[in-house]
This record gives sequence, C-alpha cells and structure tokens, in this order.
Amino acid sequence: MRVGDLGEFGAVGRISGRLPQGAAVLLGPGDDAAMIDAPDGRVVVSTDLLIEGRHFRRDWSSGYDVGRKAAAQNLADVAAMGAVPTCLVVGLGMPADLPVTWLDALTDGFRDECAEVGASVAGGDVTGCDLVVLGVTALGDLGGGAPVTRSGARPGQVVAVAGRLGHAAAGLALLQAGRQEDAAAWEGTALGEAVAAHRRPRPPYPCGPEAARLGAGAMLDVSDGLLQDLGHVAKASGVRIELDPAAFAVGEPVAAAAKELGADPLDWVLTGGEDHALAATFPPDVVLPPSWQVVGRVVAGEGVYVPGRSSVRGGWDHFK
Amino acid sequence: MRVGDLGEFGAVGRISGRLPQGAAVLLGPGDDAAMIDAPDGRVVVSTDLLIEGRHFRRDWSSGYDVGRKAAAQNLADVAAMGAVPTCLVVGLGMPADLPVTWLDALTDGFRDECAEVGASVAGGDVTGCDLVVLGVTALGDLGGGAPVTRSGARPGQVVAVAGRLGHAAAGLALLQAGRQEDAAAWEGTALGEAVAAHRRPRPPYPCGPEAARLGAGAMLDVSDGLLQDLGHVAKASGVRIELDPAAFAVGEPVAAAAKELGADPLDWVLTGGEDHALAATFPPDVVLPPSWQVVGRVVAGEGVYVPGRSSVRGGWDHFK
Repeated sequence: MRVGDLGEFGAVGRISGRLPQGAAVLLGPGDDAAMIDAPDGRVVVSTDLLIEGRHFRRDWSSGYDVGRKAAAQNLADVAAMGAVPTCLVVGLGMPADLPVTWLDALTDGFRDECAEVGASVAGGDVTGCDLVVLGVTALGDLGGGAPVTRSGARPGQVVAVAGRLGHAAAGLALLQAGRQEDAAAWEGTALGEAVAAHRRPRPPYPCGPEAARLGAGAMLDVSDGLLQDLGHVAKASGVRIELDPAAFAVGEPVAAAAKELGADPLDWVLTGGEDHALAATFPPDVVLPPSWQVVGRVVAGEGVYVPGRSSVRGGWDHFK
Repeated sequence: MRVGDLGEFGAVGRISGRLPQGAAVLLGPGDDAAMIDAPDGRVVVSTDLLIEGRHFRRDWSSGYDVGRKAAAQNLADVAAMGAVPTCLVVGLGMPADLPVTWLDALTDGFRDECAEVGASVAGGDVTGCDLVVLGVTALGDLGGGAPVTRSGARPGQVVAVAGRLGHAAAGLALLQAGRQEDAAAWEGTALGEAVAAHRRPRPPYPCGPEAARLGAGAMLDVSDGLLQDLGHVAKASGVRIELDPAAFAVGEPVAAAAKELGADPLDWVLTGGEDHALAATFPPDVVLPPSWQVVGRVVAGEGVYVPGRSSVRGGWDHFK
C-alpha cells in the first residue's frame, strides 16, 4: 500500500494512531493547534528542516532511522539550552508512492526517540511532495532555570563535551566510500557501530539540564562539527577557545573506520557533525560528572585554536 | 546576487537582520533554540509545511506574498484556538540560485504579517533545497482561557463565520484560467482583489480570541473549504451542521470573478480554501459583533447539509 492510497486525512489518522501522547500534551492532534504544558511560563522552541537527498538518503537509512534522527537533532537543540523537551510538532511532505510501511517506520522512529526524553509528537501537517521533507519543531521547558546560550563563555572557564564525537562522520564516510553493502555484515562490530551512529545519533539529553545546574556559561549541540560550532560560541562570547587534541577520547568506531579508510580519526572528532554531542563551558573549579570530558579552555582573544593543526578546517555549510 | 553567494550563515544573518523581535521573544535568533514568553503556563502550537509548486508558485506570487501567506495560515491556526499568536519559527529550504531580493521580500512578508498580530519570527533554520520549502510553526498564548476545539459543537448552537470566504479560490481560478497577464491591469478592481486574496489571505485574527470570550463551542480556521472544514467539526462533535446558502454574503471580488469565468460564486464560498476565515459555533442566545455572520445551525445527526445542494462537494486533499 502507498501513502497516496490513504489520502491526506487517512495518513494523518494513521500517523496519529501510532503516537501515544506524553504528559505535557494537554491537547494533542486533531485541532488547528496542539496545547502544551509550559509550567515555567517561558517556552524554548527550535526548528529544523530535513530534506531527502541532503540530510538523509532512503537507500542509506530506514524510515525508522530517519524518524529517530529527525527527532534527535531537534530534541538535542532543546537540551542544549538546558531545557527538558516537552513535545515535537512535525510537518511531513511525502510522495504519493511512498510505501505506507516506510511512513509507519518513520512514525515509530519519532515515537521512540521522543520516548527517550518523555516527550511526544503533539501535532503536525501532512502534504504531498516529490521528496520526503520533514519540518520538525521541538518545544521544551526550562524548569525555572536560566537558558544557557552561546554568549556566556568567559576567559578562565573550561570547555567540556558530553556524548559522542566523530561517530556519525565516520559512519557517513564508510557509506560515502561505497561500503553500504558491507554494513549488514558489520553489525555488532565497531564499523557497524559507526554506520549506526550516522543513521541514528544518540544525543546525551540529560546532560543539557545537568550542565545548566552545574553553572555552565555557554552551551550548544554539536551539529555541524565541534570546531565550527565552538566557533559560534567564541564569536558570540567574544573569547578564544583552545582545545587540547590529546584530551579527546577517540571512540572505537571512529578508530576502526579511520583504519579501514586510511583517514585521520581526529578529523572526524573535531569537524564531524550529526552526533549531537553537547559542548559547554564551565567555571574552572567545577566538579564535572563522568558524562562530561574537559577538552580545552576559554581564554581572551578570538577563534578556536587546536595546537598542531595549522588551520581550522570548516564544518558544514548547507549551500556548499 | 544569489542565496548561494551568501552561504548558510550569511543567509541566516541577512534574514535575522531584517526581523525585529516582538515583546514575547525573550531570546531570539542565534542560539540552538529561542525562548518565548508563555504567561498562561500553557502554549498553543501549530505547524504547516509549504512546498513550491503545490502551495504557491513563484510565477504567480512574489516572495513578499509567499511570506505573508505562509505566516498568515499559521497565525490563523493559533487564532482559531482562541489564542493570541506570540511568535513563528521558520525552517526555510531554498535553491542556491534563488535571488537574494526574493529572500529579502519573503522575509519582509513574514515580518509584516507577524506585525499584524504583534508577533515576530523568533528563529529558524536555513538549508539548501531544489525547491523553496517552508516549515512554519506558530506559538500562541491563551491568556488563561480554555482552548476552543473542534469537538465543542452542540445541537442548538448557531454557526457563524468571520472573515472572507471564496475570495482566494476566485483569485486562484482566475490564475488557473491563464489570466495572470490581466492581473496587473485589474489592480484596484474587484477582479484584482480576488487575485490579491489568493496571494495574500487576510485572516480575521482578533475574531479568534473574541469568539472564545463570547463562549464559542467549537472553532477552526477555514483552510480547505468551509464544507470540508465544518465536516471536521461535525465529526469531532458528533453533530450535524445545516447551513443556509442565502445567509452568505458573496463578496464583490467573488461575484466579479464568477461572472468573468461563468462560475457559481457559491461554489467558491462553500468549498474554496485559503482565505483562512474563522468558523465557530455559539450558544443560540449569543449577541455577535458585526465581524461574525450567522450562516447556519447545529442539530442532532451527522455531516454538513446545505439545502439545494444534493451532495457536498469535497475540499482539498493534498494527495489528490
């Protein structure tokens, strides 16, 4: 069966039927708008557009993977403010000949990724489109705390990261090298984990509010590559960030993929996006839980500096 | 100059620079998420996806028109809950060869439509895409009132509409009939007003919260055609809605376009979408301000009935 056989309202009904609603959803799908709990009296909101062929490929990722990834990158944006996600709303464009099984898997991916943080898909919009297009918006609640922005880094602070770095980039490199055929055989190995990381990021959601409680000065999620993203912090805060390349733990999947392809694993760690790790600055005397690794420090000046790397390589530009 | 010359971050900066922030925006563009005032402690949220070639054509509508229309249809969804819009966030996909003048006009359209209700574009996402794609999400505040849903219609209530009906459909029909060349010459005439209504809807935003204060039972915005949309109310409420065809004021632009094309103006009034009028049910003894016209009543039963029209024609299905 194809999506076009369902029609617009059939598709909406089918999607809604697979989506349980979380506690924050006071009014779910079926009206002109949803109504979401916002006990803080302020609401955090972030939106992303994902386009087939640019942000994902249907031959490289399943519908379920795309759903999880699309949800994850938006939920991570909310966590990066120090907030707890409450819901997503999703605008979904899809071709009439899209298999309904793919739509179901996509829906389930959204559902399961939201469940990781106690959120849910509270509403959306369905329309026809030659490509699969996802407009995903996440809301979150700050629980009375101040939002952690990009402009709060101060000289003397340490720079720390939580979550994985370079995994998704290593997996993407394997797929780009034409190794998709091998991916199934790699399951359970470090190479397989790299491919899985590209398909399905695992942002460290609880580390966002945790960092806020620990007094983080600045924070963001690493979506375009650590160097590029920390560049935004340096610019917004008017500081210089110095990273210690020896301080980064290179994950086994990253190391294995680098060996397989003859690449420099640190390249992926420093410039690879899409793992949605969190990067934050903290007061120098902070005692960080093990989820956070100190990888550098904030000093006076500008830019992001990594000893031994003459120039900072760029991250992702969606028009290049 | 083309959008690709700006690059992703140049485009983001250019867009942000044209967008003043409203009072509800506590933290605007530049972070992983925006932060919006939600004094009610609940927030209303609605999202829509607009795809070039399906929801708008760049040869029929200017960038400014597309911005106003995309903003309007989402702000109207918030108003239809009885809420006051606070902000939009916008995911924008666009080709690298899109003229920057078009992008600027689009941005200004969003800005001006938001200004109609005191809202603003608080954040967004920019990415490359072969087509112009807009993922628009609107937030709103209920000011302590109950949301007006689709399921609150009860037998005995009257049905009323606020705003224009059939104008956008009449304008679309003129364009579809190949009369685009004439559109410029029609400026200032009733036919020109019909074309303008297609390009730029004018939802009666204040009538949403007004209806909530007047005790509306059910409400929605008319986006897919009055009959189809009232069908949602009838279904969600478990009632039958009977409309009086003689009660509808046929606007001069609708009448003029119908004459020009030899069409039935009431067809457009009853089944044309995209004017984003509001339709609501009210207690029978309500005293309605002149912005609302009573056009029917709620009775026991099911469906939407219009005397003299044997069958209810369909509205819009995005997969047909």
